[in-house]
Amino acid sequence: MKLHSKDILGMKELTPGEILLILDTADSFAEVSTRDIKKVPTLRGKTIINLFYEASTRTRTSFELAAKRLSADAINISTSTSSVVKGETLIDTARTLEAMNPDIVVIRHSASGAPHLIARMVRHSVINGGDGFHEHPTQALLDMLTIRRRKGSLKGLEVAIIGDIAHSRVAHSNIHGLTRMGCRVTVCGPAPMIPRDVEKLGVSVTCNMEEAVRNRDVVMMLRIQFERHRASFPSIREYAKFYCLNEERLALANPGALVMHPGPINRGTEIAPDIADGMQSVILEQVTNGIAVRMALLYLLSGGSP
Amino acid sequence: MKLHSKDILGMKELTPGEILLILDTADSFAEVSTRDIKKVPTLRGKTIINLFYEASTRTRTSFELAAKRLSADAINISTSTSSVVKGETLIDTARTLEAMNPDIVVIRHSASGAPHLIARMVRHSVINGGDGFHEHPTQALLDMLTIRRRKGSLKGLEVAIIGDIAHSRVAHSNIHGLTRMGCRVTVCGPAPMIPRDVEKLGVSVTCNMEEAVRNRDVVMMLRIQFERHRASFPSIREYAKFYCLNEERLALANPGALVMHPGPINRGTEIAPDIADGMQSVILEQVTNGIAVRMALLYLLSGGSP
Amino acid sequence: MKLHSKDILGMKELTPGEILLILDTADSFAEVSTRDIKKVPTLRGKTIINLFYEASTRTRTSFELAAKRLSADAINISTSTSSVVKGETLIDTARTLEAMNPDIVVIRHSASGAPHLIARMVRHSVINGGDGFHEHPTQALLDMLTIRRRKGSLKGLEVAIIGDIAHSRVAHSNIHGLTRMGCRVTVCGPAPMIPRDVEKLGVSVTCNMEEAVRNRDVVMMLRIQFERHRASFPSIREYAKFYCLNEERLALANPGALVMHPGPINRGTEIAPDIADGMQSVILEQVTNGIAVRMALLYLLSGGSP
Repeated sequence: MKLHSKDILGMKELTPGEILLILDTADSFAEVSTRDIKKVPTLRGKTIINLFYEASTRTRTSFELAAKRLSADAINISTSTSSVVKGETLIDTARTLEAMNPDIVVIRHSASGAPHLIARMVRHSVINGGDGFHEHPTQALLDMLTIRRRKGSLKGLEVAIIGDIAHSRVAHSNIHGLTRMGCRVTVCGPAPMIPRDVEKLGVSVTCNMEEAVRNRDVVMMLRIQFERHRASFPSIREYAKFYCLNEERLALANPGALVMHPGPINRGTEIAPDIADGMQSVILEQVTNGIAVRMALLYLLSGGSP
Repeated sequence: MKLHSKDILGMKELTPGEILLILDTADSFAEVSTRDIKKVPTLRGKTIINLFYEASTRTRTSFELAAKRLSADAINISTSTSSVVKGETLIDTARTLEAMNPDIVVIRHSASGAPHLIARMVRHSVINGGDGFHEHPTQALLDMLTIRRRKGSLKGLEVAIIGDIAHSRVAHSNIHGLTRMGCRVTVCGPAPMIPRDVEKLGVSVTCNMEEAVRNRDVVMMLRIQFERHRASFPSIREYAKFYCLNEERLALANPGALVMHPGPINRGTEIAPDIADGMQSVILEQVTNGIAVRMALLYLLSGGSP
Repeated sequence: MKLHSKDILGMKELTPGEILLILDTADSFAEVSTRDIKKVPTLRGKTIINLFYEASTRTRTSFELAAKRLSADAINISTSTSSVVKGETLIDTARTLEAMNPDIVVIRHSASGAPHLIARMVRHSVINGGDGFHEHPTQALLDMLTIRRRKGSLKGLEVAIIGDIAHSRVAHSNIHGLTRMGCRVTVCGPAPMIPRDVEKLGVSVTCNMEEAVRNRDVVMMLRIQFERHRASFPSIREYAKFYCLNEERLALANPGALVMHPGPINRGTEIAPDIADGMQSVILEQVTNGIAVRMALLYLLSGGSP
């Protein structure tokens, strides 16, 4: 089996079969990063470009490590050092990079749809590394891999996603991915942070965190992105009072419920420190699985089969 | 045959025989970037440092890819992260890098002559990646490779170079290189953008774009560098009115005339979008050939022979 | 023999036997950087992350080259591009990186003790690449390697360290390292730049530069770090008058005394240009030896034995 598209643009575009293919392939690559020699020659001579228009440690580093552990050549381009300062359009930058014969370009951009725009006009593969408020598919895939490794299967799990749903590309990608794989998803946050008509995506909605957490198998917290929309916010203290995941609230979830967060975390705002570092937290496993998922995607898009 | 110097500082310093050697070697490397495995072990264990005092996507990425496709180790140093912020002199930075035993250092600097200054005092090879208003030899070489691949030979071709000739290192390098290889070069731009005595370099001069374009085989547009000398400028609209390459003007050139631009392009200012993306445009081929030319230079300066 | 700790945090933590082990191993790696093919496969498949919270050319480049010449994968993270801008704590950044299974993380941070804090909580090795005013052990080790290569042995040598002792992590690391290896160390600088009770570390103290230099085998100048504490300073001219190493003062030292400086140098402030570039200067040898010392550390921390 192969992926039907040359690109990974969003969870919305992936079939359940493709998601399974990616997760299975990621499972088989996870072991590479635990070896003494963390490297396989699989993608030797391939060129992976990380084109990041937004700052990032974990996503860029994760893709770079995934590429290097597969022996590909990884090139980083970030806005601070790029000719973006010279006012080149995104499309011209993309076409210029295409002319350098990369195999895969990972794009992170503040504009929703930027990777899709690029993908349509270039021969090489494009991976969406996060676009505006739209999608962040590799995050959703690593989240799903993390849940599956812990719970055995995604099917029938009760998952709560809590925070600023409307402005979270992580939430959007997980809603598409988790519902597709048979999870029952409840989203929760202050009313202005819930997108209109989100129920049409097949999720339940509540503004009450206790209700959202009760009897869930997975509690996925979102990062409050102060740097993006500080203005539209009530006070942080107010937010934390109603939506911070603390011990009391987590106790409402099913025994052994997983606590997840895409990071970087705001300790004490969306998640209490003892919960972030606690027994039920799989936050660092998410990071570890991120490399495996990205290795799988680089491999599959390069024509590899499991 | 070998290059006579350990450095590539400018087209002015290269003989026609050396230019041919570089273009022939580049021709043989071009194929590597089209392979499934885009990598040869030629420069394994060599150290290439990209020392960039000015922002750049395409030149830095092109050199980095050229190095990696030859299996060399590439190190990037840009002003934003360098100890330049600590006020170290260029010469001390260069000597420090020399002490790390690099094989080749690519230098881009806003001061004309900076790479020449460094080259005289270090053992390793220096490649000028663009110095002030002076030279940008690897751009001229990739331009010449692009023309030769399309036209078969450089000899006897009629080439127009249009824009801010006085402040363009691309223009200067191409004037030296193209005239040396037997092209007839006409430069064109508003009077204040034409360097005094440029005719002494063996080129024709006109301020009239229609005259510059008529009966040419190659029309090479320059980037208007707003970020460098906005003050000395008339209005952009005024400039575009007289010097933008549009369909009407291009029709004056010879049939099949090549349209070139070093990028990044200002659409609608120096070149109309439909011309930049049109049948006669070889702008993206220039980018592709840039990697081949830089692979050739890294190879030849490392002691390789064709 | 092996290092007793998984980390290199400071010279204070290293025994004389460990220092000798590192210097001996560095001696054996020095030759690699002089080869035509400057690369050995020793650390293939290892992941080295350079996590730099302060700007640096020489230290970051030196670690990156050391890693690459040992065939390890090197990843650079600097504050300008990192999620530090998103307000993540140092500890969460460190734990996130740990989850990516690096073998060694090099940390430079403006806060004294930052690498120690991290080292205690992660499985992988941590190398202190400079922490606040505290320690810069790899600089001291490369200084000691440079002295030993020139003088044959460290034992019994008279060493002067001159400058802003109180705020110099280079001075602190060298004081610990050199005294441990049997050197007699004299520190010298304006009274406010001498740390209280520094004699307890086994060094002599003077505010008179002539006295500090007279009969020394090694004169180690420190960088005046204008960018850090400009306010606490008298005038630069005043400083240079009393503490700049010039020909007259160097003549007071023993014949063949070594002149050292960690760089980047402020010419004419702490060292006269003709002395920096003179016969007795080993400043560039320090840079060269820096790569050998860092190769040795990466090798030994990865479980290698000499």
